[in-house]
Amino acid sequence: MKTGLFSFPTPFTPPTTEENDLCSLRLIRSPRIGAATFHRLVAEHGSAAAALAELPERARGAGLSGYSPCSESEARAELRAGHAAGARLIVAGDPLYPQNLAMLADAPPVLWALGNPALLAGPAVAVVGARAASSLGLRMARLLGRELGEAGLRVVSGLARGIDTAAHEASLPTGTIAVMAGGVDVVYPPENHALFQRLREIGLILSEQPWGLRPTAAHFPRRNRIVAGLSAGVVVVEAAPRSGSLITARLAAEQGREVMAVPGHPLDGRAGGCNALLRDGATLVRGAQDVLAALGPLAVAPPPPEDAHHDDAPATDTPPDNAPKTNDPAAAAPLRRRARVDYGPGADNAAPPNAAPPCPAGADTAPGPRILAHLGAAPVAEDQLARDLGLAPEALSVALLELELDGRIERQPGGLVARRG
Amino acid sequence: MKTGLFSFPTPFTPPTTEENDLCSLRLIRSPRIGAATFHRLVAEHGSAAAALAELPERARGAGLSGYSPCSESEARAELRAGHAAGARLIVAGDPLYPQNLAMLADAPPVLWALGNPALLAGPAVAVVGARAASSLGLRMARLLGRELGEAGLRVVSGLARGIDTAAHEASLPTGTIAVMAGGVDVVYPPENHALFQRLREIGLILSEQPWGLRPTAAHFPRRNRIVAGLSAGVVVVEAAPRSGSLITARLAAEQGREVMAVPGHPLDGRAGGCNALLRDGATLVRGAQDVLAALGPLAVAPPPPEDAHHDDAPATDTPPDNAPKTNDPAAAAPLRRRARVDYGPGADNAAPPNAAPPCPAGADTAPGPRILAHLGAAPVAEDQLARDLGLAPEALSVALLELELDGRIERQPGGLVARRG
Repeated sequence: MKTGLFSFPTPFTPPTTEENDLCSLRLIRSPRIGAATFHRLVAEHGSAAAALAELPERARGAGLSGYSPCSESEARAELRAGHAAGARLIVAGDPLYPQNLAMLADAPPVLWALGNPALLAGPAVAVVGARAASSLGLRMARLLGRELGEAGLRVVSGLARGIDTAAHEASLPTGTIAVMAGGVDVVYPPENHALFQRLREIGLILSEQPWGLRPTAAHFPRRNRIVAGLSAGVVVVEAAPRSGSLITARLAAEQGREVMAVPGHPLDGRAGGCNALLRDGATLVRGAQDVLAALGPLAVAPPPPEDAHHDDAPATDTPPDNAPKTNDPAAAAPLRRRARVDYGPGADNAAPPNAAPPCPAGADTAPGPRILAHLGAAPVAEDQLARDLGLAPEALSVALLELELDGRIERQPGGLVARRG
Repeated sequence: MKTGLFSFPTPFTPPTTEENDLCSLRLIRSPRIGAATFHRLVAEHGSAAAALAELPERARGAGLSGYSPCSESEARAELRAGHAAGARLIVAGDPLYPQNLAMLADAPPVLWALGNPALLAGPAVAVVGARAASSLGLRMARLLGRELGEAGLRVVSGLARGIDTAAHEASLPTGTIAVMAGGVDVVYPPENHALFQRLREIGLILSEQPWGLRPTAAHFPRRNRIVAGLSAGVVVVEAAPRSGSLITARLAAEQGREVMAVPGHPLDGRAGGCNALLRDGATLVRGAQDVLAALGPLAVAPPPPEDAHHDDAPATDTPPDNAPKTNDPAAAAPLRRRARVDYGPGADNAAPPNAAPPCPAGADTAPGPRILAHLGAAPVAEDQLARDLGLAPEALSVALLELELDGRIERQPGGLVARRG
């Protein structure tokens, strides 16, 4: 599979998987490139490599002097560190890439996976909740973890103290996935070191963040979108009002996933978040049966794509270079049920990037200032913005990219855009 | 107001209130006359007196030999006992009769009231729940009782141990109504003797049952329909699955009332009933604010009818003979918002009963056997029965009355009919 040195693809020589991994990693690790922008650029240019090649020019066009994308050596260093630790990089479009996650507009372009990536193939449900959980809450998390696992679902959570830990522990024998806010190699919280090791052995640990990154507050909501995004639904077991678990639930609702909550007595403050979710229409969960009833057919694994079942052995001894991968759209397509991230036929069959890509930046009487004047701190949907400003979607898209590269706007989950600072 | 001896009304001499009370009491205390039948007969004949006069003939027509209605002396004895104890008889149509209750097809034809019947004028909410309540449940019942009372609602419950008792005690200062399953004078459960006395002094105790009746199991669901029927909504605070509180909630739903429930942790068995209600669509209640939000305008007292606000003094010193009453339909009509029990203009203005009432019993090729053949132990809606058997509603109505008098069928709440035994 190795085709030699990394190079930008040229017509009629589709990029190898290794090249695509490296270019994807470089593109997402480049400054001011978020997940949504990543997908937009790849869709526009046909491949990560082509998008990466255009990036300096686009930055110059946006008036950004001195913009440099993530260098090949930085990306190679991250890949080396990951592979040396037995981790595997799963890039969007890879047959192993989880289909539920692929539906997100801001699906993580790359995922580091430590443990058994075959767990990504089954249907999954998130079980999340408070760190300071009650004994009833912990019992419920263990019950749900065990019974949902026995029903064939992967249990996804965030390795936090309390509910998350209980849910992971109970579902270790059947398959559990921890999504980290920092690097996939950074044990957080530190006291979960033993559980982390067990997950690495028989479960799965995922992160979209660079190797070695220590998480800060801003990383947790980003992580939570992956917890929800991997899952057909999210069960909140116990949560205070305004807690991180409620962010996960809100993101799940935005993603069109089933939101479920375990009720508690209103005079117990730890039930406040769950009861608020229930008042807002979440499904009341008394046990695993209620979750299975709510998920219905979503709790059943879809037929796997042809090439996805190669991976019974843990990834620790299957670095990505040796794993069969494919860019064949026929293999990748069934992974997406209602995909919102779709690079189009040009991307799926790795056709050469458009020799003269449409690049109308600056040609549209520079809509950037109008966009900034219209935007506030409150996020606005992109299509709403196009209507408000009377801009063609493509023109808006290009202008937003310039503003994002320039650090003037911020993309948020659900196709929302907000002004920065 | 006294017009002399009781007599059946004749054209142009409307019955006095005293006469109507006595006839209503005799009619409902007559064998095999339930609340729904009572209302049907009064609607058909124009008054309780006329219905009572026709009863022996109708019973003979139905082949019931030896049928005798409740005698005048029996009814007078009950009235004497009630009045001697300071209780007041409130008959359907009386301005004091609670408007919410009047909407029921099987509204109690008579109510004994011990305490302050003026409490019947305000908007009311039922707070019910388990006898074996948790400390959190009891705290919630007290909170709801106090705060809903302070918000201007009467708190209705059933004087049972646990939740009911806590709700009554907390709402004594603002106005609370206990509905008894047995006679209004029978303290049940006996340990609530002190609370019973306080209710008699500053609250209200109600019962549709004969004076002195000791309750048996069958009386409690009948009582529960009154608890729900008095109220704009029912809050279940804590309830095991298959408990009496759930019967109250079901009846409330059938009556079109708001059904609300306080959630609890699913691993606490005492929350099973409430969580089941919530899964079935009940409104989740975390405190009084949620109840008030759910009830909205129903939590506000409607403008009282002109004659209804005469009664600031407790009924203990105002026996019914001295209380102003009226048969004026203009006074009684505003009490009913969407009345299902409506005796029509002939009843409301106490017009003379039809001299030749339609009495097609036996004239319809005797549908009785067909009805019995069609009915099983599972209750069937009366209109469904009419469709199934191709019977005109009037013909079915008459036939069902005969069968009810004959003890062959049983009417159940919600317009349902079932075969007996």
